[in-house]
Amino acid sequence: MLPRTIDWDDGRIVLVDQTALPDLRTAAVRTVDELVDAIRRLVVRGAPALGVAGALGVALAARTLDGAALADAAERIAAARPTAVNLRWGVERALAAGPGGALAEALAIRDADIASCHAIGRRGADLLAALCGDRALRIHTHCNAGALACVEWGTALGVVRDLRADGRLELVVADETRPLLQGARITAVELVALGVPHRVVADGAAASIIARGLVDAVVVGADRIAANGDVANKIGTYPLALAAARAGIPFVVAAPESTVDLDTPDGAHIEIEERDPEEVLGVAGRRTAPAGSDAWNPAFDVTPADLVTAIVTERRTWEP
Amino acid sequence: MLPRTIDWDDGRIVLVDQTALPDLRTAAVRTVDELVDAIRRLVVRGAPALGVAGALGVALAARTLDGAALADAAERIAAARPTAVNLRWGVERALAAGPGGALAEALAIRDADIASCHAIGRRGADLLAALCGDRALRIHTHCNAGALACVEWGTALGVVRDLRADGRLELVVADETRPLLQGARITAVELVALGVPHRVVADGAAASIIARGLVDAVVVGADRIAANGDVANKIGTYPLALAAARAGIPFVVAAPESTVDLDTPDGAHIEIEERDPEEVLGVAGRRTAPAGSDAWNPAFDVTPADLVTAIVTERRTWEP
Repeated sequence: MLPRTIDWDDGRIVLVDQTALPDLRTAAVRTVDELVDAIRRLVVRGAPALGVAGALGVALAARTLDGAALADAAERIAAARPTAVNLRWGVERALAAGPGGALAEALAIRDADIASCHAIGRRGADLLAALCGDRALRIHTHCNAGALACVEWGTALGVVRDLRADGRLELVVADETRPLLQGARITAVELVALGVPHRVVADGAAASIIARGLVDAVVVGADRIAANGDVANKIGTYPLALAAARAGIPFVVAAPESTVDLDTPDGAHIEIEERDPEEVLGVAGRRTAPAGSDAWNPAFDVTPADLVTAIVTERRTWEP
Repeated sequence: MLPRTIDWDDGRIVLVDQTALPDLRTAAVRTVDELVDAIRRLVVRGAPALGVAGALGVALAARTLDGAALADAAERIAAARPTAVNLRWGVERALAAGPGGALAEALAIRDADIASCHAIGRRGADLLAALCGDRALRIHTHCNAGALACVEWGTALGVVRDLRADGRLELVVADETRPLLQGARITAVELVALGVPHRVVADGAAASIIARGLVDAVVVGADRIAANGDVANKIGTYPLALAAARAGIPFVVAAPESTVDLDTPDGAHIEIEERDPEEVLGVAGRRTAPAGSDAWNPAFDVTPADLVTAIVTERRTWEP
């Protein structure tokens, strides 16, 4: 079994260091600066885990700061990854609880995430049973929306775990998810730990694997969902939705309600984080492109609502 | 300037070793076994270059073999990569010329490839001018269909070179093309050598770059084109076609007539080569996925004809 992805331990935030995976290593965060660095370097990532990280970060800051200084620290945490709405949401929740209440609020967010993942998993598995009929399913997923993106259990992989508990899971196909390989390094680690049969594929292979009838449904997480149902998720999600629509299979988004941002009317209003070009120009720190090449490295893409079969949260099944 | 990708030099086939790129290194092939190995390991790759490799391979074999032994050697070469129709086409052309005529036929195929690339480039650039209007274009491409996939000049990148000669090229966006990174390692080398402004992107980013209006047209090569216009090309091509169709921009295939296989009625009849899973489970020889993970690694995908705006060959512009 894997340890909790993020937790509070006697004045420190303890994280599974996601940059070290597939090796399992934990990191202890004692200051706001260390947390901002950990968020930027993706030591902690995944929308729900970032919500908890934001709240615990405010709790950490509240041990020594209050007033304007606490608000400044909170803003630095929230701004560490601009597209991740859950991060700011967690920060604001803990900040609203005040210096004395921040930790209790952060721990409540942690516990709510665990409960929410279980509700999402159950609802998603029931939805897929209704959509795909009574058979063992082959599920295609992207990036990592598993226990290691949350506190435990997972969202998209929570659906997979509930399907499996129901005896209705045949296979998971996991995109490797360049440039940072969260699929190959993180989702695959979870699937190995669970003993789930799976295949890792290159991101470019995903659309044709869907077209060839090798999977029954696509289930992914989300980093931000606009009011109209447009979904921002890890770069490489949108082509899965295009392929699923053409193949006539379900494209399901599994995410907590906190991912839904009613202040964002549609995908055109979602800021797309542009990351360091070196992540694309090299692999695992080794340069693969020639000197003189430049890169674009958008961290997210937007899947338009009309390509989304359903968004499953802990509270509802939404067909945008 | 880059040397010729493949040529004949005094009884040897001389190749630019494409596995060493972005480092430039040549390899000399003296036997059929060495050639089969070079084809399998992608030391030589790209549909047109494989046609020349097949023909030169028969010329090499014909120096010491004839009759059934020559036919056996030819079959081994042709079978080294089953999806690449040009390879078998080159082998059969040289074999039909007989042991005494094989070399002259192979050299004629080499020269015809050079002429054909120039004709494709010109025709493709004129087509894009007609489709996109009078402005400098941003072209999205996948894998490598450049000089290094041919003898010289290139097919998809031949179109880019003609656009540039016309003063109508603004930018090239090149997918890195996992698992073997032909975009980042090979196309980028050509674009640096040509001094063309370009951006390398992760394969998963391609569809959303198209959706965001950051490119004006997609231009790719082909490994096999069925009689109905379905196009097999490097894995990751199909999602570009889906995204281009949705965005309403042209999706153009640039390939020699020898890529069109009238014996293959449609894409469903194209055998998809499945390569070593380790290419996906690791990067540049370093394992990234955990022990216990397996992978699928299809080398090609099929883009249905209805998503193809036009196929440009040395002889015609075909709207399938």
